[in-house]
Amino acid sequence: MSVDEIQVGLLGCGTVGSGVYKVLHKNEESITNKAGAKLSVKQVLVKDKDEELAVDVPDEELTEDFTDILNDDEIEIVVELIGGVNPAREFVLQSLKNGKSVITANKELIAKHGEEILLTAEENNVDFYFEASVGGGIPIIKPLKSSLAGNKITKILGIVNGTTNYILTKMDEEGAEFDSVLKQAQELGYAEADPTSDIEGCDAAYKLAILSSIGFESRIDIDKVYVEGITGITKEDISYAREFDYKIKLLAIGKEEEDGVEVRVHPTLIPEDHPLANVNDVFNAIFIEGDAIGETMFYGPGAGQMPTGSAVVGDIIEVARNIKLGAQGRLPCTCFENKKVKEPSEVETRYYIRLEVLDEPGVLGQITNLLGEYNVSMESVMQKGRSDESVPLVLITHKVKEGDINTALEEISKLDPVKEVANLIRVEE
Amino acid sequence: MSVDEIQVGLLGCGTVGSGVYKVLHKNEESITNKAGAKLSVKQVLVKDKDEELAVDVPDEELTEDFTDILNDDEIEIVVELIGGVNPAREFVLQSLKNGKSVITANKELIAKHGEEILLTAEENNVDFYFEASVGGGIPIIKPLKSSLAGNKITKILGIVNGTTNYILTKMDEEGAEFDSVLKQAQELGYAEADPTSDIEGCDAAYKLAILSSIGFESRIDIDKVYVEGITGITKEDISYAREFDYKIKLLAIGKEEEDGVEVRVHPTLIPEDHPLANVNDVFNAIFIEGDAIGETMFYGPGAGQMPTGSAVVGDIIEVARNIKLGAQGRLPCTCFENKKVKEPSEVETRYYIRLEVLDEPGVLGQITNLLGEYNVSMESVMQKGRSDESVPLVLITHKVKEGDINTALEEISKLDPVKEVANLIRVEE
Repeated sequence: MSVDEIQVGLLGCGTVGSGVYKVLHKNEESITNKAGAKLSVKQVLVKDKDEELAVDVPDEELTEDFTDILNDDEIEIVVELIGGVNPAREFVLQSLKNGKSVITANKELIAKHGEEILLTAEENNVDFYFEASVGGGIPIIKPLKSSLAGNKITKILGIVNGTTNYILTKMDEEGAEFDSVLKQAQELGYAEADPTSDIEGCDAAYKLAILSSIGFESRIDIDKVYVEGITGITKEDISYAREFDYKIKLLAIGKEEEDGVEVRVHPTLIPEDHPLANVNDVFNAIFIEGDAIGETMFYGPGAGQMPTGSAVVGDIIEVARNIKLGAQGRLPCTCFENKKVKEPSEVETRYYIRLEVLDEPGVLGQITNLLGEYNVSMESVMQKGRSDESVPLVLITHKVKEGDINTALEEISKLDPVKEVANLIRVEE
Repeated sequence: MSVDEIQVGLLGCGTVGSGVYKVLHKNEESITNKAGAKLSVKQVLVKDKDEELAVDVPDEELTEDFTDILNDDEIEIVVELIGGVNPAREFVLQSLKNGKSVITANKELIAKHGEEILLTAEENNVDFYFEASVGGGIPIIKPLKSSLAGNKITKILGIVNGTTNYILTKMDEEGAEFDSVLKQAQELGYAEADPTSDIEGCDAAYKLAILSSIGFESRIDIDKVYVEGITGITKEDISYAREFDYKIKLLAIGKEEEDGVEVRVHPTLIPEDHPLANVNDVFNAIFIEGDAIGETMFYGPGAGQMPTGSAVVGDIIEVARNIKLGAQGRLPCTCFENKKVKEPSEVETRYYIRLEVLDEPGVLGQITNLLGEYNVSMESVMQKGRSDESVPLVLITHKVKEGDINTALEEISKLDPVKEVANLIRVEE
């Protein structure tokens, strides 16, 4: 085989796979120039050759048998776009062991088996690239590993799930409730029929585990990521947050502090003038703080056929450049350390607390006194309306340990005038 | 010399040079891990060894003679941070010819002599990297050349000059005039004693020439970039723009359309909900549109010791990775084509026009009729106040060729009730 042509095998030809196929063909000439070699898709693995694809693939390029790709020595790059752990993990590991470089968009696979896969790639002197696994088309993995490599990364704040960002944006814009916006999102194709992984924060947690492992140079076990979804957010919370000049976003938060690393995904109040506060609809953005660069943010489409295809093709070009020069393994795993991940109870943050209380004199005093006993001090308080029944009392605290706030709220819920602790949402500055 | 240590020579130790020195030392362990080799500064070229530097450099690392670095075979990477064309160009070319890879933050040098330098690097099989030349610490050059390499880039909109962005932000926030804000910026160190290159748009033009050459894969001659600074922007323009829901920013605009490439730097009205509209103070951002990714934006500090140091060190690490693997030349010049750059008169855009007119019946009719004769149609019109003398009349047009608008305005200026064509600013969607 000539060095001037590099053969690619695609595993899967769904949304992203067809995007990759389209991008490679549409911009073929320019891509060949940049890669220094023609990148040709030789085989595409599909479940059923007779099923219609979102892109025209000639019959002779289709196969239903993975070993057709695995055993084809001309194929030097395998692109895994099946998703999920099985059989993706096996296909990836076997490809690497057969001397093929692998590119994937599979965040679950990397978050759960990244170490094993990266080690296997290293042992076999091939590349494993995964730009598309976080932030769809947004360049973030390679910038972290190269342009920002001189920094000690101290903070990562990401809006990394388009479905939940769409839902929260619409709840804000339309004053609508979660359920109705979710339904609307499903109709528009922005949410899956089973939206659990998105709305419960799992998708964002996979992405945070990947970003944090690279940013903090220490493998972050997916089980160590605290996860809370957005199903408990009401239109009232969004509207009260706005009165305090905050937006509510599902944030993936990674921080390195002196006593360890924090990794958590949860709905978060973020100041309206923060660059992330204006990231709306299905857009994603990743805000990075480093000791040299200060603050930087990467913004763009977090999903979709062509944006994700763009990220995968960027990886294919990078790997092709390495193959041309025999420089595979150029960007290896960067988890050099083994840092402590804090328990949720050790994390210190600010909180938004929404209570339902009886509209009686002295209630606020009772509550703030009790909070004070647990070292919780107030930044702002707002009582909404007057009523013979209960009224909402909204508090924003200064920084406090999660353990302390939970104990304090347990006590508060026992106070007579307190009808309900209606919501507790973290606040980021 | 062991492969596990790579020697670096720094040319210049001013703001950026001392930043590079600091970053390399501060994060030495992590940088060594990532580069796969210890990166040691062996020699620093300064004008005068006795002058105090912003960072502690041991005497034995200082030299006043460039040939000490040029002829030191152990030095494999030269970092040029002198700025300007002479002697930077000679130093860079000689270093490349002596087999050293070169990194620079020098936008003027690249914009004016990029082709010669990149060819020399290629002929000598070494690297020439320049991430810090655009957007300070913001990763943008490498993302364009790698993560986004699968795209045909169609549009580049950049806020790439911190000084002018600071001035326009303050004029907007404080309702202040240009001159007083410029003075304030100079006192704060955000503007130079001689601010010409910033406020007249030259600095932004260099950066646009670099971005466009990479984005459109065709060398953009700096002389082909249309440049207009911000000195003609008044607080009235900013306030009227706001009434139409626009902000005024100094934008570096590159577009590829069917009939050629447009490259222009000028004050621009941009809709308030555009991601660039909220990039304030000295921050920079580059908004990119590609056929696969759609829209993406890179935001961060556009200047400063540590952010620019961060970008340079990112390049040093990348080049070190190439040296370790013998993969120099991995990211060569990507100007594969020779595209036509449009003349300013061929460019079609929308315009904001501010006139001073007599407050008489029929004036608006006269003006819009005349504009209509030159194919200029109106999108919005606003007349401010009433007066016996002249009043401002502000128009926003639909798309029109620059040639047509200029002829139309010449005719309009001759109308009796028109006292002055006070300003003409382009509008971007």
